[in-house]
Amino acid sequence: MMDIPLNIWTLFASAQRHYGDVDIVTSHADGSSHRYTYADFAQRSQQLMRALDSLGLPADAVVGSLAWNTYRHLEAYFGVPGSGRVLHTLNLRLSAQELAAVIDHGGDVAILADPELIPLLEDAYAAGGLRKVEHVIVLAGEAPDADLPGLLAYEPLIADQPRQYPRTPWAEDRPLGICHTSGTTGHPKGVVYTHRSTVLHALGVASGAGFSLGPGDCVLPVVPMFHGNAWGVPYAAAMVGAKQVFAAGPFTAQRVIGLLREEQVTVTAGVPTIWIDVAAHLDGPKPLPDLRHIISGGAQPPRSLIARYRADFGIPILQAWGMTETSPLASVAWPKHHLRGLPDDEFIEQAASQAGLPVPTVELVIRDGDGADVDWDGTQVGDLYVRGPWVADGYLHGDGADQFHGGWFHTGDVAVGSPGGYFRIADRTKDLIKSGGEWISSVDMEAALMSHPDIAEAAVIAIPDAKWLERPLACVVTRGVLTLEQIHEHLMSHGFARWQLPDRVEFLDQVPRTSVGKFDKKVLRARFPA
Amino acid sequence: MMDIPLNIWTLFASAQRHYGDVDIVTSHADGSSHRYTYADFAQRSQQLMRALDSLGLPADAVVGSLAWNTYRHLEAYFGVPGSGRVLHTLNLRLSAQELAAVIDHGGDVAILADPELIPLLEDAYAAGGLRKVEHVIVLAGEAPDADLPGLLAYEPLIADQPRQYPRTPWAEDRPLGICHTSGTTGHPKGVVYTHRSTVLHALGVASGAGFSLGPGDCVLPVVPMFHGNAWGVPYAAAMVGAKQVFAAGPFTAQRVIGLLREEQVTVTAGVPTIWIDVAAHLDGPKPLPDLRHIISGGAQPPRSLIARYRADFGIPILQAWGMTETSPLASVAWPKHHLRGLPDDEFIEQAASQAGLPVPTVELVIRDGDGADVDWDGTQVGDLYVRGPWVADGYLHGDGADQFHGGWFHTGDVAVGSPGGYFRIADRTKDLIKSGGEWISSVDMEAALMSHPDIAEAAVIAIPDAKWLERPLACVVTRGVLTLEQIHEHLMSHGFARWQLPDRVEFLDQVPRTSVGKFDKKVLRARFPA
Repeated sequence: MMDIPLNIWTLFASAQRHYGDVDIVTSHADGSSHRYTYADFAQRSQQLMRALDSLGLPADAVVGSLAWNTYRHLEAYFGVPGSGRVLHTLNLRLSAQELAAVIDHGGDVAILADPELIPLLEDAYAAGGLRKVEHVIVLAGEAPDADLPGLLAYEPLIADQPRQYPRTPWAEDRPLGICHTSGTTGHPKGVVYTHRSTVLHALGVASGAGFSLGPGDCVLPVVPMFHGNAWGVPYAAAMVGAKQVFAAGPFTAQRVIGLLREEQVTVTAGVPTIWIDVAAHLDGPKPLPDLRHIISGGAQPPRSLIARYRADFGIPILQAWGMTETSPLASVAWPKHHLRGLPDDEFIEQAASQAGLPVPTVELVIRDGDGADVDWDGTQVGDLYVRGPWVADGYLHGDGADQFHGGWFHTGDVAVGSPGGYFRIADRTKDLIKSGGEWISSVDMEAALMSHPDIAEAAVIAIPDAKWLERPLACVVTRGVLTLEQIHEHLMSHGFARWQLPDRVEFLDQVPRTSVGKFDKKVLRARFPA
Repeated sequence: MMDIPLNIWTLFASAQRHYGDVDIVTSHADGSSHRYTYADFAQRSQQLMRALDSLGLPADAVVGSLAWNTYRHLEAYFGVPGSGRVLHTLNLRLSAQELAAVIDHGGDVAILADPELIPLLEDAYAAGGLRKVEHVIVLAGEAPDADLPGLLAYEPLIADQPRQYPRTPWAEDRPLGICHTSGTTGHPKGVVYTHRSTVLHALGVASGAGFSLGPGDCVLPVVPMFHGNAWGVPYAAAMVGAKQVFAAGPFTAQRVIGLLREEQVTVTAGVPTIWIDVAAHLDGPKPLPDLRHIISGGAQPPRSLIARYRADFGIPILQAWGMTETSPLASVAWPKHHLRGLPDDEFIEQAASQAGLPVPTVELVIRDGDGADVDWDGTQVGDLYVRGPWVADGYLHGDGADQFHGGWFHTGDVAVGSPGGYFRIADRTKDLIKSGGEWISSVDMEAALMSHPDIAEAAVIAIPDAKWLERPLACVVTRGVLTLEQIHEHLMSHGFARWQLPDRVEFLDQVPRTSVGKFDKKVLRARFPA
């Protein structure tokens, strides 16, 4: 068989000749939109490769991107690694100080930045960061006035460059990208993706056991390109020639629904909170007739949400699981063939309770404290370990080496395996609540709370307790008036014992979100220290 | 990223734990059937690995399989390469002499054979073949009496073996399988698949740009496991945990329809002739409600067939293209997202005329006689070249080296590229008819003929002509009485010029088939030499 390296050019090879007439759409927050084709994308990405060469950046330079989901960001996804350099996606929700630290930790020598994010970058520079940065390239027609090193505008920089770049046989293990963890659990750590891992991950995402993407699809990632590569959707979609739709700026339910409809989106992906918001603005029975399925990840979607989409809208919600360290896709909870016959209730129960089956080439084990495999009996919990060709074997600069044991990555999640071969996340290790020597799962309690028709959001944290060490505190967003007693009754009807019930419930307007849209328990813990 | 080799164990890793409750069904030609689970399959495959070790076969031995589509053949697909050995699938349609030559060319030291094929193997042995073969393992509970070396029965051989085999990190470039070309164009040549090529091909087959296979699917390959790995379906299905259904023995329309219905098959694949036969036994409007799509390959399906399945049965037929040398899947003609809005007629025209878009990681070029790329303008023909990580870079024992040029495989097909990025096979180079200095495409003429409602099958060959060098001869199977004039009129209404029309038509009961079900033009040329 031919010895052909799996690299960014593998994903890019068909863009011009085979998908040249396929659209890539960017909807801006101001209501304007931009539309061009894969032929334009292929040409401009190669012009970017040439431009990076023309700036004299080292062949293995790290180039940051501080940008929303746009076609220019997509060009960076291909243009930076196509030229052999490394794309470091930067989280635009970070504070200036955090951002400065991450940029310097990555070793960025240039940064591609959206014009509206230049003030944030200036603050990071003023805070003493960007020490190695020689060029800030503003993703626009012209660069604003700003106190930043080597300020350039993107459009004039690439405009006169040749439209072809020589296809270079980059080695499979060459770094392609860096993403820092979102740091809900401490200091952000850098994960380095390779050309090989990115191609294999794209194949996994495009597979019928991943997101199932092909040339007939139109994808809208409702997850940021600045973190976890928008779950790999841009690379996988480009590989198979799917139409791509990007929403620049913050996601709102109205914008998402508008794009799903107007662009006839067939596959979309995002965190459960956005699907909760979207549901509130939809009416049945077939409000989005083109949508084949929704991928929901980042947290367990409430059972009621899955039931609503199935019954009222006819759209399957598939739970996915992964981490920055797993590229990020590791599993999707596709119902197996023999489950298609289940009664609605059981089917939804199954869908709501499972983080899934591993995407091909990924492997999972659940181990007890002694490192022995626990039984997949639906009840025993253990530490989740993962391995595979797109799973990190370490962090940038040797950080966090204790999370890698004997060829496996210790996820920090606690999981339960079912006899049917599905697993579910029981909790982050640190989110388990240890009360009187027994564990209470905050994830299970949140799922039970959100299954109540009048509870829109729920996050459960541990608060210190003199007698029990820790006790659960429930923070909820309700649609009407609920009492503590009603909440207790509801939890007991879902199998919680009296000693597990939260002694206290806080009623909030909204549960605070992390930079990637998950419930931010760090903020809640700070707000409710006791 | 972790350095994990892509090998057979990558495909096998989830079978036991994650897909253990999924069914694998074998329907035998006598009407009986066998049903077990992935857990059984995983266990027995590992017992086979142990058994091959216990026989003392060399670590890199070539093991042949002479078998129909069955669960035991599936066990060989995993058990032979799992133990590091090489599976050589043998075409059971060959003559004893041809079979003997192929077995010895592959260097087989053992052969797994179905009991009903033992007489064929005896003939091959009697013809002086099987020179290196030490063991013939009969895929049954006991071995029949036969004049063959080292006769053993499969079931007792594996029965007492341990149920686990140590997972071995086979190198990616280690040979995994051998398949000989079907030899429609001369002496069969051996193609050697590697562990890496097989895993990548499985990912391509499972992708939404391939056959789109996931855990929710049930697949029925209506193509033989003895050739082209049943288009890679068994490996891809096992990788994603799809339910698998095998029909052992010859395929008939009734058996295929029965299995599609009873097993709720969602994806199936076969040559156009079987779909023609199946259509004759189906009634609309939703005769096969579970079937998502049909993959049709090996030859261009008639336009009328695609129209019938779309209009009457609501089932898309997708054209696929590949060769033994391309593992075999190289392209599938998925309609792009923006084609979904086409009027029925144009949509069907598009579907009928295209061999497709390359499956991810595969690349195609069309070149003129001087090696220059021809324009993809929908009219210019050229030689089709292909490359990719699952494309052969040579044949076994250095045969046919002239088909490999500068990193590309010269397919021997003549192709046309469209502005929309699809290509179609215009002909095999040798099937073009050169009449008076101009080319006539036999493939185009066959497609036009089969679009006639009363023509069931059509094959067009060249016959020598004193004046024009070659002239087309049409061999057709009709449903009623048709005259030469009516056929001429029909062809002219499809754009053929008068000088291109066949001077003669032969009316047959059936067009002869090759061992893999394609129209056999070699036989027709022998029958109609002038």
